[in-house]
Amino acid sequence: MILQNINVGFLGGGQLARMMILECHKLGLNPWVYCESASDPAAQVCTRQVLGKLDDSKKLIAFIEGVDLLTFESEFVPKQILKQIMGLGELQNKIFPAAACMLVLQNRESQKSLLEEYKIPSARSLPVNNLDDLISVWQKWKQPFVLKKNFGGYDGNGTYFLNSENDVTKFCQEISFNSEGYIAETRISFKRELACIFVRSASGIFLSLPLVETKQSFGRCDWVWGPIKHRQFATIEKKFKRMLGQINYVGCMGVEMFDTGKDLYINELAPRVHNSGHYSQAALNESQFLLHLKAGLDLAFDKPQLLAKAFVMTNLVGKSSQAIDFPQSLNGQLNMYGKFENRLGRKMGHINYLGNSAKSLLTQALKERRKIKL
Amino acid sequence: MILQNINVGFLGGGQLARMMILECHKLGLNPWVYCESASDPAAQVCTRQVLGKLDDSKKLIAFIEGVDLLTFESEFVPKQILKQIMGLGELQNKIFPAAACMLVLQNRESQKSLLEEYKIPSARSLPVNNLDDLISVWQKWKQPFVLKKNFGGYDGNGTYFLNSENDVTKFCQEISFNSEGYIAETRISFKRELACIFVRSASGIFLSLPLVETKQSFGRCDWVWGPIKHRQFATIEKKFKRMLGQINYVGCMGVEMFDTGKDLYINELAPRVHNSGHYSQAALNESQFLLHLKAGLDLAFDKPQLLAKAFVMTNLVGKSSQAIDFPQSLNGQLNMYGKFENRLGRKMGHINYLGNSAKSLLTQALKERRKIKL
Repeated sequence: MILQNINVGFLGGGQLARMMILECHKLGLNPWVYCESASDPAAQVCTRQVLGKLDDSKKLIAFIEGVDLLTFESEFVPKQILKQIMGLGELQNKIFPAAACMLVLQNRESQKSLLEEYKIPSARSLPVNNLDDLISVWQKWKQPFVLKKNFGGYDGNGTYFLNSENDVTKFCQEISFNSEGYIAETRISFKRELACIFVRSASGIFLSLPLVETKQSFGRCDWVWGPIKHRQFATIEKKFKRMLGQINYVGCMGVEMFDTGKDLYINELAPRVHNSGHYSQAALNESQFLLHLKAGLDLAFDKPQLLAKAFVMTNLVGKSSQAIDFPQSLNGQLNMYGKFENRLGRKMGHINYLGNSAKSLLTQALKERRKIKL
Repeated sequence: MILQNINVGFLGGGQLARMMILECHKLGLNPWVYCESASDPAAQVCTRQVLGKLDDSKKLIAFIEGVDLLTFESEFVPKQILKQIMGLGELQNKIFPAAACMLVLQNRESQKSLLEEYKIPSARSLPVNNLDDLISVWQKWKQPFVLKKNFGGYDGNGTYFLNSENDVTKFCQEISFNSEGYIAETRISFKRELACIFVRSASGIFLSLPLVETKQSFGRCDWVWGPIKHRQFATIEKKFKRMLGQINYVGCMGVEMFDTGKDLYINELAPRVHNSGHYSQAALNESQFLLHLKAGLDLAFDKPQLLAKAFVMTNLVGKSSQAIDFPQSLNGQLNMYGKFENRLGRKMGHINYLGNSAKSLLTQALKERRKIKL
């Protein structure tokens, strides 16, 4: 396969596209980014840029026509754009994951139905499209539940925890319904949150990257450590292999799980590379970003080698509007996203660590992070 | 230290600058490249470009004025430019290695004198500035010797092996002398060639990356494996620490050595990151490219962790003018340079491998390379 003449397009200019583009450079591919501004994280590392909005279908379709292969950095491409792509005939074959997969997975309700179809355990759910639905959820369950926007939620945005009838009543006064609606899910009482990246190629190679524990803080990933073992994981993996094969999914998929101490329940799927897999840049011989590209190019890949007994990734999330200030000494492997403006809650970068014990590594990593003025 | 507003300039647009720029992206620095064409390997991964020639002193000095920090991808910056920089006062403080260091190290004769000054073992040498010098070298030594251009030699270019009086006579008819001249060196009878990267920061942190064996083919690096042990290496390291400290050298230095089976002799120094250190991208937690930047930024660094028992790097050197054709399956970690045109003898990329045994890894790597149509 001649790699140097392949034009790979990325929809979206954030850090996920940035890190995929850096892997494109290593493979000698020609990356192209479609994003809003030349100062976007991905555009800073990519000389081939088309500036445009995700809902500008004319510009976007022209971009797709111009590349050999196209992938997404976010699942939140407007539904009508995905449907338009699905009507493009052969053109859609260069897109991974397929527009049809993105359409199902970008919506919490259809994502949930897919999990149920393949008997993959997750919280019970009910659709919420209006106030009556919301009230009847409480009446039916009489227990705390989570309400999630069907479309566009991320990093805790669009997720609401309703714990009492009072919460529900109060929330009814604030909620606004759009055409996409919400989904209500029973709360799973978990001991810890786990996550995993699955990868599948067009030819059907399927594998999982090491299972990790993720620690969330204010709805955002705070840190990740691994590798983790869980005796239910092999069953989950088998079911995903079947499901991704059936829907002909190509690329990486980030899967968030609840570990109740006994069972694993799927929390959410992301049809793309995922924050919980950033550790792979340092801890594996092939990163999730590279594997995503290999899957799309239909290159072969094996189970990646784990390069250390334990690994930790810490996120650098903004705490102020000042530029991040690092100490002179930094042991971890820094990956910054090139965002000009720091702000509260914004993911600005992350740091990877390798070592022999996850516990002492985490202590060291969090100690090091405290020395960084975020 | 606030990294995001630091503009780092690179003189030269080849693969070495390209790989340093990829590390800039990870640190969130602002890389700037000064090179001849927007299609140069480094310019392809860097949106901030100034196109110009290395001997255009006006443009080049303006480039230096505009950045916060500047480094080189090649030692062959015109001597008059380096001298001009040395007259720039404070401005030269942002340049690493310092222009004064580059001036000494870019010339084989002054490089040799430096090694002799610090009693670092290397082949005996004689200056050759005209035909009489060349003839008297043979008369004096009466043994095969190597003639090297004092300036501008690389990858076997500018290096001539003269094995007999007949060779010398014949060569006298072909040779042309410029102001830089040549150096003659006695041939060292070696068992293998070794190489090492030393790094020194402005604050005086000094360390060596693992010693490797390099295999040359047609004057170019063919492959590298390591780590290698040699009982003389500690002595060499100590002498380099002293030398680099005395000349206040900042950044990576590539050092090529001959191993006679007993002793180590220095072959050549390169005041920059070096092909023999490319393995560090995969085998160490911090690559030579990152360490070069950390040294220049005066960030602290420790001895890098070795991530595997053994490593191999193979170079992908062009054998035709066709685009390189890869098999569908590739186990190693590919690093392509983005050169549009393949040609005989041109370094197009390299592949890194990690494993438990260097010997079996090399067998695997060379087998894999044979499947690539170069």
